Amino acid sequence: MGNTFGQLFRVTTWGESHGGGVGAVVDGCPPRLALTEADIQPELDRRRPGQSSITTPRKEADAVQILSGTFEGKTLGTPISLVVKNEDQRSEAYTEMAAKFRPSHADYTYQAKYGIRAWPGGGRTSARETIGRVAAGAIAKKLLRERWGVEILACVECVQHLHCHVDVDKLTLAQIEANIIRCPDPVVAEKMIALIEQVRAQGDSVGGVIVGVARGVPVGWGDPVFDRLEADLGKAMLSLPATKGFEIGSGFGGTLLTGTHHNDAFRNVDGQVRTTTNRSGGVQGGISNGETIYFRVAFKPTATVFHEQETVDVNLQNTTLKPRGRHDPCVLPRAVPMVEAMTALVLADHALRHEAQCGGRAEVES
Amino acid sequence: MGNTFGQLFRVTTWGESHGGGVGAVVDGCPPRLALTEADIQPELDRRRPGQSSITTPRKEADAVQILSGTFEGKTLGTPISLVVKNEDQRSEAYTEMAAKFRPSHADYTYQAKYGIRAWPGGGRTSARETIGRVAAGAIAKKLLRERWGVEILACVECVQHLHCHVDVDKLTLAQIEANIIRCPDPVVAEKMIALIEQVRAQGDSVGGVIVGVARGVPVGWGDPVFDRLEADLGKAMLSLPATKGFEIGSGFGGTLLTGTHHNDAFRNVDGQVRTTTNRSGGVQGGISNGETIYFRVAFKPTATVFHEQETVDVNLQNTTLKPRGRHDPCVLPRAVPMVEAMTALVLADHALRHEAQCGGRAEVES
Amino acid sequence: MGNTFGQLFRVTTWGESHGGGVGAVVDGCPPRLALTEADIQPELDRRRPGQSSITTPRKEADAVQILSGTFEGKTLGTPISLVVKNEDQRSEAYTEMAAKFRPSHADYTYQAKYGIRAWPGGGRTSARETIGRVAAGAIAKKLLRERWGVEILACVECVQHLHCHVDVDKLTLAQIEANIIRCPDPVVAEKMIALIEQVRAQGDSVGGVIVGVARGVPVGWGDPVFDRLEADLGKAMLSLPATKGFEIGSGFGGTLLTGTHHNDAFRNVDGQVRTTTNRSGGVQGGISNGETIYFRVAFKPTATVFHEQETVDVNLQNTTLKPRGRHDPCVLPRAVPMVEAMTALVLADHALRHEAQCGGRAEVES
Amino acid sequence: MGNTFGQLFRVTTWGESHGGGVGAVVDGCPPRLALTEADIQPELDRRRPGQSSITTPRKEADAVQILSGTFEGKTLGTPISLVVKNEDQRSEAYTEMAAKFRPSHADYTYQAKYGIRAWPGGGRTSARETIGRVAAGAIAKKLLRERWGVEILACVECVQHLHCHVDVDKLTLAQIEANIIRCPDPVVAEKMIALIEQVRAQGDSVGGVIVGVARGVPVGWGDPVFDRLEADLGKAMLSLPATKGFEIGSGFGGTLLTGTHHNDAFRNVDGQVRTTTNRSGGVQGGISNGETIYFRVAFKPTATVFHEQETVDVNLQNTTLKPRGRHDPCVLPRAVPMVEAMTALVLADHALRHEAQCGGRAEVES
Repeated sequence: MGNTFGQLFRVTTWGESHGGGVGAVVDGCPPRLALTEADIQPELDRRRPGQSSITTPRKEADAVQILSGTFEGKTLGTPISLVVKNEDQRSEAYTEMAAKFRPSHADYTYQAKYGIRAWPGGGRTSARETIGRVAAGAIAKKLLRERWGVEILACVECVQHLHCHVDVDKLTLAQIEANIIRCPDPVVAEKMIALIEQVRAQGDSVGGVIVGVARGVPVGWGDPVFDRLEADLGKAMLSLPATKGFEIGSGFGGTLLTGTHHNDAFRNVDGQVRTTTNRSGGVQGGISNGETIYFRVAFKPTATVFHEQETVDVNLQNTTLKPRGRHDPCVLPRAVPMVEAMTALVLADHALRHEAQCGGRAEVES
Repeated sequence: MGNTFGQLFRVTTWGESHGGGVGAVVDGCPPRLALTEADIQPELDRRRPGQSSITTPRKEADAVQILSGTFEGKTLGTPISLVVKNEDQRSEAYTEMAAKFRPSHADYTYQAKYGIRAWPGGGRTSARETIGRVAAGAIAKKLLRERWGVEILACVECVQHLHCHVDVDKLTLAQIEANIIRCPDPVVAEKMIALIEQVRAQGDSVGGVIVGVARGVPVGWGDPVFDRLEADLGKAMLSLPATKGFEIGSGFGGTLLTGTHHNDAFRNVDGQVRTTTNRSGGVQGGISNGETIYFRVAFKPTATVFHEQETVDVNLQNTTLKPRGRHDPCVLPRAVPMVEAMTALVLADHALRHEAQCGGRAEVES
Repeated sequence: MGNTFGQLFRVTTWGESHGGGVGAVVDGCPPRLALTEADIQPELDRRRPGQSSITTPRKEADAVQILSGTFEGKTLGTPISLVVKNEDQRSEAYTEMAAKFRPSHADYTYQAKYGIRAWPGGGRTSARETIGRVAAGAIAKKLLRERWGVEILACVECVQHLHCHVDVDKLTLAQIEANIIRCPDPVVAEKMIALIEQVRAQGDSVGGVIVGVARGVPVGWGDPVFDRLEADLGKAMLSLPATKGFEIGSGFGGTLLTGTHHNDAFRNVDGQVRTTTNRSGGVQGGISNGETIYFRVAFKPTATVFHEQETVDVNLQNTTLKPRGRHDPCVLPRAVPMVEAMTALVLADHALRHEAQCGGRAEVES
Repeated sequence: MGNTFGQLFRVTTWGESHGGGVGAVVDGCPPRLALTEADIQPELDRRRPGQSSITTPRKEADAVQILSGTFEGKTLGTPISLVVKNEDQRSEAYTEMAAKFRPSHADYTYQAKYGIRAWPGGGRTSARETIGRVAAGAIAKKLLRERWGVEILACVECVQHLHCHVDVDKLTLAQIEANIIRCPDPVVAEKMIALIEQVRAQGDSVGGVIVGVARGVPVGWGDPVFDRLEADLGKAMLSLPATKGFEIGSGFGGTLLTGTHHNDAFRNVDGQVRTTTNRSGGVQGGISNGETIYFRVAFKPTATVFHEQETVDVNLQNTTLKPRGRHDPCVLPRAVPMVEAMTALVLADHALRHEAQCGGRAEVES
């Protein structure tokens, strides 16, 4: 029952790596939003394997079909069913993994929890599971952009020790898509790509940090006390495969400041309440304050590396495993659209929740 | 509608700082658990203001009453209503804040979202709101301990730049409660207390990091893909006031390792699957793997500092504010039981979810 | 976990008959609704025991307190905690019931499900449980009336074989409250009262039918396919104690007509789409159509009768039981405000859901 | 957001009559249940149009595909995606309905609510929507039968004024499937079929009553106070198209008895608590008591009749409409598997909820 996200803009994903396909059902999308596959496919293309020299060489078109919920190019207000067929399946690479648990992968915990596991391709633990999220997120993104003018972006800030400076107020999609690692600084991007290629050549992997950004979010989204905006963003990010950490605004670094230096002063700027700094990350008390929302997400190095490692087999005997198959040496470039998608799902849900309880009210009356 | 946490072990909290009281309703607690106020009060005492020289001097007994859900000292399986009356209320300290928004506090966003706000004591944004969580968490903690042998602890790891080493496998409650900052290293604890006293004397505030630990969690808890254990833990922590970040296991630091160094090897130890390291933090693929679960939570410095700061008033005019009243110079010692409580709420919920779907199965059959 | 009703206007009730009290938490109520205890108490007075010669003689003031969620007489948008203390408790009347299961009561099933039961006063199965619903429903009723002009009423249509005609378009509160049985036809009301007094004298009980009415509901409320308006109304009614049936519009009787006679023709009346008949009961395809919503609810005769009956004891031995204590010979007059309350909770929830998904749109553009 | 049913055994349906297909996602099904399309298809065949002379002549194979959630013929504990393609689509029959609202159909309310509607085939309001329910229900049925020995059946009791006696304790699937109307009394069945054929020849339609039965349900399922078993059954049935009423056990008829005659006496029968009568319908206080659960559901006559009727068009002008196309003159025979499916979904959900909260406990200890 953990496969549904959101209360009002509600997404249920389904699908294993090597079954009939993967997909999602979006329930609660407002009616009369213009929507065709062409709104969704570009996001899936950003997520697709085989898109560049630093991603897995698997080739899958990941072509999305909308099976329901639209009529004459507009949403109906009924559930939108999104399906992507599975294609390039090679179970043989997984034969050994059928019998042995990959270290730091979900093989063992799935087997222990469910007493059964679809080992070809990793089953539900495959990154293919995120296709449904990205497809649903594309709809949420469009809704947010068209109805509230919200813009959502993500980019790679760090690959292992390499990092760049991200200006969250000026970041553009063009900057992000200008290189295959999706880092807005072209100089650092070169180094990151070189590092990943070197690591891949060694059969190893690296992780890093993605920055997520939402601009133009009106004041008032977020639902304390438990469904604070940062809590739901944190959950969304930590539900993505390979994530180990989340921080919003000043984050862990903010703990080094005193309150007087950390606080964001309010100022009236052209009749609007603004903050002079943005250590809050666009959220105060769990509610958006009108400033840019930004956060960082830590992705661990890919667990599947091509070195021999100690592990146990399904009979719990000690053994070693040297994985084969096709895997990303670094998940970050393909994770960028996932971070954007999950951000969009959180914000679309909270936008509708705010409409419901507060009638869309979003400003202090003066 | 954001005031309920959990699917099966479900907690709804209510209450403003200066209203009739605060409390929680716990729905879904299994029947026949021995439970009286004496099981709950000690946790509230750890959370209470005025407990030491480094917390706010407000004096509130925070005595909890169980109004329903138990009979002859045992739970009935019906909702448990927990109430704590409000006592030491001094609205006058808040008079200025009625008209001016405190920087980096939730005053402005609440006013903007709801068009109304209970300014005395901060209303629902007061730390008093967490009383209901801590009371409910005490029940979850007892259930987890008695039924599954799970032990939950939290402690202060860092106050600003001061930090100690926490051994998550050996940490004890006695170590934590041995000093008023709740840091298990007595030497660092002394320095932390001195720092907080110095900061308080300056009318300023500091933040830091709390480590949360759950030991004895069986294999199999967690509900991918969205309700991964770390995702729900992250949400739980980020729903606490003043939090800015969450990381599990190796966290952000883990992004500096390559996959071969980051992976946790599996070994059969006395017939059980164990990992030789625990960079995963006890969770793989969103499901507990039987190792110690541990994570870190960043708390920002308290927003209410006694310096004059720039802000706007409720008419959106620029002004300055120098807050008065009684506030914690550092929320961490009182946040320790909050982190434990939220951890317990997440785990109790997932324990019941696992019973429901998998019938309590938690081991690979060999 | 079955003690919460609603998705957006969300009510959680708690409380046993003989514990510390009963109450409810309302989460999701929009902010800035004028609200004090005086808005709620009159509904509780209509539900109160001892209000007339044909209800149980128990005397309880059932005075409600609002502990949170309002400030200066207006709702805050935060959870509203409602509490009513328990007062007139006489456990001794229940001593025998501690050991024996009352036929057609919930004693046995609660004991079997939970392995424990609060036998004094029937615990959670007592009609006192509905206090929280009626209190929460009073808030929903006010919201519906003030924001959408919706009027909600219920009345007794049948007591056993005695029934009156109810004109759902003209029914008034004054008619309903004109007599103690709450039947709008004063002549039939006299007979109903006489019947109940006669049945009570015999130590027996009777049931009957309540008609529920909602007028002024705009077109568009209801959320197919599962959360159709009539499905949620049906669930709401069947969640009330002692209910055995629900029908909307033509109901079971409508199965005797052919389609041509059953259909409601549409007509444009002064620019509005209206139906010339209303066999649909104000709902088509699960969505309100702007006509009066009306439905019927069957209440069985009170299970606690003062005759000796065959039953088993808690050791599963055959025995007989002749209940004592104070009970209603007919639940209907006190159930009228319960039906109204549950109707209000369903409609308030769907009103907010419609705002969220469809932005309050409620008319065909022409 | 109204397209999901259940808390733990959770079904989301999607699909319009004339889009790419219809289907469902089942989340929360326990792992290791043997499951292939062959377990589901027979139920869809019972629901399929064109199955007999008294159903709509549309021809659709309604062949189900399982796209995810199983591996080597067993459930994985992950979401099960079920898809049925749309085939025999003839939009031209609906051209007139594009411009005019069918009386007592959902055309108008959908248009008013959403501001858009998929008129071909009725879109989401088509009976095709129930394919997803029946497919998901087949899984729930199998789970209930294999794990708890629960048997679920439904049959036609009444068509208009014709009715038969149903013995809910002895009813068999063979009796039900012995004739095309699915009435267990072969003599009455003949008359019902003749009536439907006559009505169809007149271009008219009829409704009736279906009895639903669940045998072998253990004591203890149901979750008061709001999620009583009969409340969730009632909601489930009233969420089916064309339903107008629901009653459990003695239902509306039970209001004619006094309490002494209505009560079900308890007796110890071979060490088990049984009732000597079953006016409760297998549920007391919202919780199953171990007796046969039975209830009745009223279905109105099909709204689409081939007579000229008064209505309005999409410009709100008065007009008349004489529908064309292929429709069932009586929905009952095809609704029988729908009633069974929804019963199974309710019970599977409550079975898992009981496991979660009460650890499967289902008997009084003696």
